Amino acid sequence: MLKVVHSKVVREAALNRLKERGVTIDQIADIVYDLQVSYKPDLKKELCLESVEAVLEKREIQHAILVGIELDILAEKKMLSEPLQSIVETDEGLFGCDETLALGSVFGYGSIAVTTFGYLDKEKKGIIKQLNKHDGKEVHTFLDDIVASIAASAASRLAHKLRDDEEAEQDQEHAGNRFSAHEEEAG
Amino acid sequence: MLKVVHSKVVREAALNRLKERGVTIDQIADIVYDLQVSYKPDLKKELCLESVEAVLEKREIQHAILVGIELDILAEKKMLSEPLQSIVETDEGLFGCDETLALGSVFGYGSIAVTTFGYLDKEKKGIIKQLNKHDGKEVHTFLDDIVASIAASAASRLAHKLRDDEEAEQDQEHAGNRFSAHEEEAG
Amino acid sequence: MLKVVHSKVVREAALNRLKERGVTIDQIADIVYDLQVSYKPDLKKELCLESVEAVLEKREIQHAILVGIELDILAEKKMLSEPLQSIVETDEGLFGCDETLALGSVFGYGSIAVTTFGYLDKEKKGIIKQLNKHDGKEVHTFLDDIVASIAASAASRLAHKLRDDEEAEQDQEHAGNRFSAHEEEAG
Amino acid sequence: MLKVVHSKVVREAALNRLKERGVTIDQIADIVYDLQVSYKPDLKKELCLESVEAVLEKREIQHAILVGIELDILAEKKMLSEPLQSIVETDEGLFGCDETLALGSVFGYGSIAVTTFGYLDKEKKGIIKQLNKHDGKEVHTFLDDIVASIAASAASRLAHKLRDDEEAEQDQEHAGNRFSAHEEEAG
Repeated sequence: MLKVVHSKVVREAALNRLKERGVTIDQIADIVYDLQVSYKPDLKKELCLESVEAVLEKREIQHAILVGIELDILAEKKMLSEPLQSIVETDEGLFGCDETLALGSVFGYGSIAVTTFGYLDKEKKGIIKQLNKHDGKEVHTFLDDIVASIAASAASRLAHKLRDDEEAEQDQEHAGNRFSAHEEEAG
Repeated sequence: MLKVVHSKVVREAALNRLKERGVTIDQIADIVYDLQVSYKPDLKKELCLESVEAVLEKREIQHAILVGIELDILAEKKMLSEPLQSIVETDEGLFGCDETLALGSVFGYGSIAVTTFGYLDKEKKGIIKQLNKHDGKEVHTFLDDIVASIAASAASRLAHKLRDDEEAEQDQEHAGNRFSAHEEEAG
Repeated sequence: MLKVVHSKVVREAALNRLKERGVTIDQIADIVYDLQVSYKPDLKKELCLESVEAVLEKREIQHAILVGIELDILAEKKMLSEPLQSIVETDEGLFGCDETLALGSVFGYGSIAVTTFGYLDKEKKGIIKQLNKHDGKEVHTFLDDIVASIAASAASRLAHKLRDDEEAEQDQEHAGNRFSAHEEEAG
Repeated sequence: MLKVVHSKVVREAALNRLKERGVTIDQIADIVYDLQVSYKPDLKKELCLESVEAVLEKREIQHAILVGIELDILAEKKMLSEPLQSIVETDEGLFGCDETLALGSVFGYGSIAVTTFGYLDKEKKGIIKQLNKHDGKEVHTFLDDIVASIAASAASRLAHKLRDDEEAEQDQEHAGNRFSAHEEEAG
């Protein structure tokens, strides 16, 4: 009988796959930084890295990584049956399963993530641009969308987190002010 | 140079794939009939068949058929790499790429299609139930969701069409009434 | 100048709105229990409650609650302009904005949440059924979908959590076994 | 008893609403042209207009127009209850119901439409940019997303149509060639 695959195994396999295909967490964090720095000029790269790592902990994105990269590799090895082989190999413009698969995990981070994904899909940045070159024998039809999905999700997660932090700060200031006021009153 | 695959080739391949995997248009139309007959007791099976055929003309669903069945067959042949092989082979409960891929084409038919898809995913009917048996060596992890997606899309398309027809009828009656009224006035 | 609304205000308003419209967290947890107990017969209601509460912490669902209930109330007061007033008041079958709005937050919990939402939309359970009665002057066109969305999200969240707990238990057992083995060896 | 609203009434109301809020079909077609001309330099504006008009025939988008503009107008008149009033009036960055509502109809045109919508949401073009100015008393929190959704859907529809036309042309040429060949053989 086949047994259920442990989450750790899935997680590790997904991270290894990304690495083997030449995509680092740092490169994805660069895209996140690029997307969010205009909203917060003093943004630290570490926060972007942490956000990418958090997104990569989700089962939904790990599964998408495994499926997408598998199809890319099979296309590279000419092991898909026709006409799917040609469609994936040429990254055919009206083929949408790559975006659909990637969208599945983007949805998890709300509508900001979805629109950011759409933006990255058109304005390919950083590693996404490199993956999309179509110059060698490598096929990255699915991977470029998956990387865009991770970056978009991490950017959306970060936007929500920054707001939460801001509010927490304000709350503390308020609390501080009230405290000082009390002190003065007391004084 | 690789050339763009002609739509006809994609269409034919998708329809053949379905057939090879034991799914007929008639079986999908049965599910559509079952879903819609309670809203329209005198529903004709032909309308369901026509709706399934119309849905199958869409590139989005044809691509999903090609990708989904390819992954099922590769899993049957034990040709996927681990842990994806085990995940697909066991139709692992928390694996969502099968639903995600199918949802991509369901969206094309509006929110009614999405909710109907969700319903079919739980209350597996007809051929979907058979595909989901997990009793032999066959793997239908992706196919059952794709069939549910086609049926849900066709049911939603039909619901919209029936409303349009109803309205067109009413309009004709009104026109008729107005005409009779004119006649009477004239008479 | 208008200032940004604090998350706490949004959160509190959303929870109050639900309550004012007669929906309790307990009623939603009942639906979650009903959905998940077949997968885990010894499921505790508390876990369902906790999952509903966690879902209600999300901005996305809080916003959907505020918008949806606002539209329901405006329709009750006959304050929407026509033909929207009639469409919302009659919960018109082909109107999909209620499902769409609810889907936005369901997506956050993966494809299992989406299919569960679709199922609940057809097989209205518990409080959803009551909301959907259309017998009085109350309009719940948006609210029934929003409650279905919260329940579906909480059920999906719970399914993922139960798996995580199961795995953590297995890991501990393994660790325990290895430890015993070591002890024996040592002994 | 309330009766079902006729499609024609919904259609007309939606088109009027757009017009009243200062959005013309021509302005939306300009965005579509701008999006697609790089793929087809000899693109005719008429094809863009026709595609926008076809998208506007869909119930899903008509309903979204009615709901979205209603909420914008209610916010302008300060008739929404707090905190929704402030959230909509300020077009609050983390509020996603506007994008969600718009996405519902974008999905109908496939994943290309979704990514194009995301792109337009960031790179606001033409009339979308004007709507998003936030300089007067007008509130267009929902409308800018709805216009982006119509433009994205029309662009995706056009991309599919252009491919179909291209293929039909090729088929005719082939048929022509085969015919000539036959003639030569015959000759």
